[in-house]
Amino acid sequence: MAETQNQKDMAHARTKVSFNVTDMTNYLHGGAANVEQRRYIIDLIAREPVFNKDDWGWLNHTDAVKRGIAMSTRLAEIKMEHDLNDLDFATMMEAIDDTLPIVLHNGAFIPVINSQGTEEQIDKWIPPAEKYQILGCYAQTELGHGSNLSKLETTATFIPETDEWEINSTTFTASKWWIGGLACLSTHCVLQARLFIKGHDYGAHVFVVPLRSLDDHKPFPGVELGDIGPKAFNGFNKMDNGFARFNKYRIPRENMLMRFSKVSKEGVYTKPPHAKLSYGSMVLLRSVLIKQMALYLSRATTIATRYLTVRRQFNNPTSRNDADLNPGLETQVINYPMVQNRLFPMIAQSYALFAAGSEMMNKYISLMTDMSSGNIDALAEVHAMSSALKSYCTTIGAAGTEECRKLMGGHGFSYFTGIAHLFASIVPSNTYEGDNYVLTQQMSRYLLKEVKTAKTQPEKVTPYSKYLLLALNKSAFDRTTCGVAHAEDWLKPEVQLAAFEHRCARLAFELSDAVEAGGLDQANPKTWSDHNIECYRVSHAHAQYTMVLWFIQSIQAAQDPASEEERRAEGPSIKVLERLSHLHALHTMQTNLTDFVEDGYFSPAQCQSLRAQVKALVASLADEAIGLVDAFDHPDFLLNSALGAADGNAYKRLWDKAQTEPLNQKQVCDGYEEFIRPLLKKHGDVKL
Amino acid sequence: MAETQNQKDMAHARTKVSFNVTDMTNYLHGGAANVEQRRYIIDLIAREPVFNKDDWGWLNHTDAVKRGIAMSTRLAEIKMEHDLNDLDFATMMEAIDDTLPIVLHNGAFIPVINSQGTEEQIDKWIPPAEKYQILGCYAQTELGHGSNLSKLETTATFIPETDEWEINSTTFTASKWWIGGLACLSTHCVLQARLFIKGHDYGAHVFVVPLRSLDDHKPFPGVELGDIGPKAFNGFNKMDNGFARFNKYRIPRENMLMRFSKVSKEGVYTKPPHAKLSYGSMVLLRSVLIKQMALYLSRATTIATRYLTVRRQFNNPTSRNDADLNPGLETQVINYPMVQNRLFPMIAQSYALFAAGSEMMNKYISLMTDMSSGNIDALAEVHAMSSALKSYCTTIGAAGTEECRKLMGGHGFSYFTGIAHLFASIVPSNTYEGDNYVLTQQMSRYLLKEVKTAKTQPEKVTPYSKYLLLALNKSAFDRTTCGVAHAEDWLKPEVQLAAFEHRCARLAFELSDAVEAGGLDQANPKTWSDHNIECYRVSHAHAQYTMVLWFIQSIQAAQDPASEEERRAEGPSIKVLERLSHLHALHTMQTNLTDFVEDGYFSPAQCQSLRAQVKALVASLADEAIGLVDAFDHPDFLLNSALGAADGNAYKRLWDKAQTEPLNQKQVCDGYEEFIRPLLKKHGDVKL
Repeated sequence: MAETQNQKDMAHARTKVSFNVTDMTNYLHGGAANVEQRRYIIDLIAREPVFNKDDWGWLNHTDAVKRGIAMSTRLAEIKMEHDLNDLDFATMMEAIDDTLPIVLHNGAFIPVINSQGTEEQIDKWIPPAEKYQILGCYAQTELGHGSNLSKLETTATFIPETDEWEINSTTFTASKWWIGGLACLSTHCVLQARLFIKGHDYGAHVFVVPLRSLDDHKPFPGVELGDIGPKAFNGFNKMDNGFARFNKYRIPRENMLMRFSKVSKEGVYTKPPHAKLSYGSMVLLRSVLIKQMALYLSRATTIATRYLTVRRQFNNPTSRNDADLNPGLETQVINYPMVQNRLFPMIAQSYALFAAGSEMMNKYISLMTDMSSGNIDALAEVHAMSSALKSYCTTIGAAGTEECRKLMGGHGFSYFTGIAHLFASIVPSNTYEGDNYVLTQQMSRYLLKEVKTAKTQPEKVTPYSKYLLLALNKSAFDRTTCGVAHAEDWLKPEVQLAAFEHRCARLAFELSDAVEAGGLDQANPKTWSDHNIECYRVSHAHAQYTMVLWFIQSIQAAQDPASEEERRAEGPSIKVLERLSHLHALHTMQTNLTDFVEDGYFSPAQCQSLRAQVKALVASLADEAIGLVDAFDHPDFLLNSALGAADGNAYKRLWDKAQTEPLNQKQVCDGYEEFIRPLLKKHGDVKL
Repeated sequence: MAETQNQKDMAHARTKVSFNVTDMTNYLHGGAANVEQRRYIIDLIAREPVFNKDDWGWLNHTDAVKRGIAMSTRLAEIKMEHDLNDLDFATMMEAIDDTLPIVLHNGAFIPVINSQGTEEQIDKWIPPAEKYQILGCYAQTELGHGSNLSKLETTATFIPETDEWEINSTTFTASKWWIGGLACLSTHCVLQARLFIKGHDYGAHVFVVPLRSLDDHKPFPGVELGDIGPKAFNGFNKMDNGFARFNKYRIPRENMLMRFSKVSKEGVYTKPPHAKLSYGSMVLLRSVLIKQMALYLSRATTIATRYLTVRRQFNNPTSRNDADLNPGLETQVINYPMVQNRLFPMIAQSYALFAAGSEMMNKYISLMTDMSSGNIDALAEVHAMSSALKSYCTTIGAAGTEECRKLMGGHGFSYFTGIAHLFASIVPSNTYEGDNYVLTQQMSRYLLKEVKTAKTQPEKVTPYSKYLLLALNKSAFDRTTCGVAHAEDWLKPEVQLAAFEHRCARLAFELSDAVEAGGLDQANPKTWSDHNIECYRVSHAHAQYTMVLWFIQSIQAAQDPASEEERRAEGPSIKVLERLSHLHALHTMQTNLTDFVEDGYFSPAQCQSLRAQVKALVASLADEAIGLVDAFDHPDFLLNSALGAADGNAYKRLWDKAQTEPLNQKQVCDGYEEFIRPLLKKHGDVKL
């Protein structure tokens, strides 16, 4: 078939890119070796028929779960066949592009036992789990309780006579709910239940609980299991999120995971030595989510950028016209400034998310190294940081994905864009691993402590809160204004960082003052929850500051000849990266402009010049956009998008996908004889 | 079964409401007679088995279309049996709560023929259409063209020899695409095609085109029809959005709708007398959408408010604690200030949308009255207004619906909330009937003309642009600041309106100055599309001003003893309505605070007091929230939500819904023997 106009437009767009795309891909994924391994793993998945995505748009929850089970077991086999590590497993999940019943086995069941079990327990449970002789999940959330672990209503009562725990769903709302892998797949779970000995409540603890017979997969007597039904937007539809009720169900005492707390045969309870050790796994989960947001948002921007490059509509002169092509054609939609101003900041955000995901993981690894040698100094800061970034990054990840879909206009509402599936996968991240609003209290509590430290022991303020020192002299701080005099001043990283630091410092001190004043107001004392709006503001402000800083630092490191090879980039790539970093910083300011202007830090003239600079940066990226998204290196199999495939042949692919619709396999639809014909003939034949 | 805590909480919340809910319902729906009729129609639908919604969560697109056809034909029968009018038909569609293949028959096919057909054409096509002896749809959008009507690639070429049109899909991208009702149901369509006579292109015109045989429903030779496949988020899944290709397909000359343009037997083309007459139908469609947003967002806030009233989590002291209930219980989630500050402004928005939907429809009706007597003075303003409001209202409608879902935390991701389905139905409105970004050019073009008028003939400025006169004296205008001195000043409607007027005037003059300067800049001339970001800003600013104004006016009218009975409300309701109006105005300011502060109109101190006033208003509505959403009068059948039902029995209903999951009808899942067991046994049995 002859090359379509779509394909010509795509090929032409690629000729304009100024930098080496491979170089940029290596920067993003941390070096050529990583890129190659990621491609190898994705291809491994793409070659397996069970992971084919062609019929996903038609699977209802019931059929999807069955598919999810088939995919799960094959995934397990591949992992064993190729002896893949956790990183490769994560890449397989990225390639598969859906949550499967088995993910909690490797993602929660095994890690929880490894981190909270004794040596003997690990020896007992982990080898069969790694050989998939048992399949596990993680049962925490209940119908009535999610965030509030201490009020879980599932109990584990010690029965000294038999040396057992009696697991009981004490109330209707004690039913375990939302448990991935529970409804169909799992033979075991690790269960969060409140531990009772002789009537005393010791709070939530973790137990390994057999659920189904290894002989015939039937639930054991006393265990009631089921699926909680379909999810929003058809999301997570291959996942068997389940419920469980326990009716005085007995398990051996040894099934309590006892690395930290212990209960002896005699029913003597021993407390854990350190309460905060489990924070590490929360930091890990949240850090992984930040990296995932980079992968997700970059996919959405890839699809939108490619489609809008080949979509043409209206023949408008624009200041960025594609006059070098046939002048009889309509304007490429991506050449409209409004479209660029919506889309390109999200490409910049995707790059910033790559940098943030990578640096957050470094912080986690460094924390783990410290903690393994008993040093927990960094724990509080890293935990707060991961919380704030999880909240902010998953918020912009989900919102940006949907914005990319809307940018694609009418065809954006087709399932075949691939973006709707992406949104359905990504948006629950705003709620799980800590609701994005509730979670911001972690960073704000941390900052309040840091404000106190700044006032009393300024030398002890932690690295990322150093900006608080700016506000110690209140009258001088209040008089501080932004130093931008000329438009190009906005492009100085130190000017950008100073603005974010000023904003964070102001909001943190305002929150601190309000909390103090609120407590002192005897007539109308404020409680912590009265400050939660401000907690959200300051926490996201801090997350944005961190993102801006890390992106700048990542580009600096890429230029450093002394830096590790993996992250180095060439001159042309660096120049474009710097523009992306400027756009990310300044667009984030513009989106939150009130925070910078309401105390007079920015002047009216600076607001105008900031907006102009954002527009100028966006325009400067017009020829780079297609290269910037190609650099994410997402293959067609992963994108699963008729409109976002690499060759740009969007209309042809959309047409081809539509031909696979089962409705199109019949000339006259089901329901004609039963419904349509009787209606048409109700008042007799008509002559026209 | 004993009353659950959920039910107790719901009943208790209702005891605190200060106003008469019935009174408020009558205010919202325009009087007791309307309320009664709406309930009657919804009940009519609820009693029909074909409209039962219990299995919707499991229907894939193929099954859903078949259901959609069954629902369509029953809907047609009911309409005929009860001889229902258009308003009742709209209420039926509200009750049914999904888009059906047949809606374009009544919503587009018939109206287009009625408005664009001659008397003879109406006599020919409308009676059989009204008796459903033919079924029609509206075929405009193509694979390659949506917004740009003038570039459609489907042609209708006049063949004088046979007095026929030859309909042809000239290119691959000429395929009609997205046409609702086309893939399965319709026998006819009204087709937009470019009219050619002797090689001359007369642009897009409308033709009645027979598609399928009335004998056996098979497509006629030369007509290729099919379904375009599933849609995003499983939305519109009962709708048979289709494609069509025409291969030199002949229809009689008389099938061109000739009320305006005409083509004679001799091939002589006659132009329409007035080019803008068709704007009326666009105004109508957009006005209807605003009313729909009121109905949709009010449903989402109803569900969220009810669930959060009965959901309890953590036992935190809050400044709005529910200490009058059992102090051993956790805090109702709705009592957290953060939750209230997210949710209550959306309740206020819903009320404002009711007022706006009603007033926009009045404007449309008045315009039609004028136009029928040849007066088109108001056309430009009303058309611009409907465009700006459509863009703004559908944006906040879709975003607010999703925000309500997220407010519900983990359970919010269940399909059984009912909100995900709502979002999938609502969000394409951001794109259809004019993309929300593109559409804002209508209002901004209009305002630019008004700026010119203000400068040259200030007495001729139209009513809603009067604020432009404020800015005629630039130096005085630039020195204008907001008059708020005390927090309570924010509660003066004239202060609120002055702020919105100032902002609109400033943005409109800035846009006007930029457009003029851009054209004069010889070195780097700006084109219209370079200003589209500013168009969006000023257009949404104007829409917000109109919304604030109309809500205020609606409450004033409700207090007027001389006003029509339908909209009158009692004192206690008025007091709460005024708080809602304040919250709507001030929260809209806060959300867009940059626009009010960046030119110095608001001072830093005013920003602080505005935020405090918003919080105070939110707190003042805590006891009213459940009454405010009950007043929307959405019955359980309509909401179709386990978590948002009127009785508040959320957990029980969620449990019951889960039990209907087909996966739960088997003790051991499909796929065990085939997939799970072989994996478990791969390395032999394990002893644990």
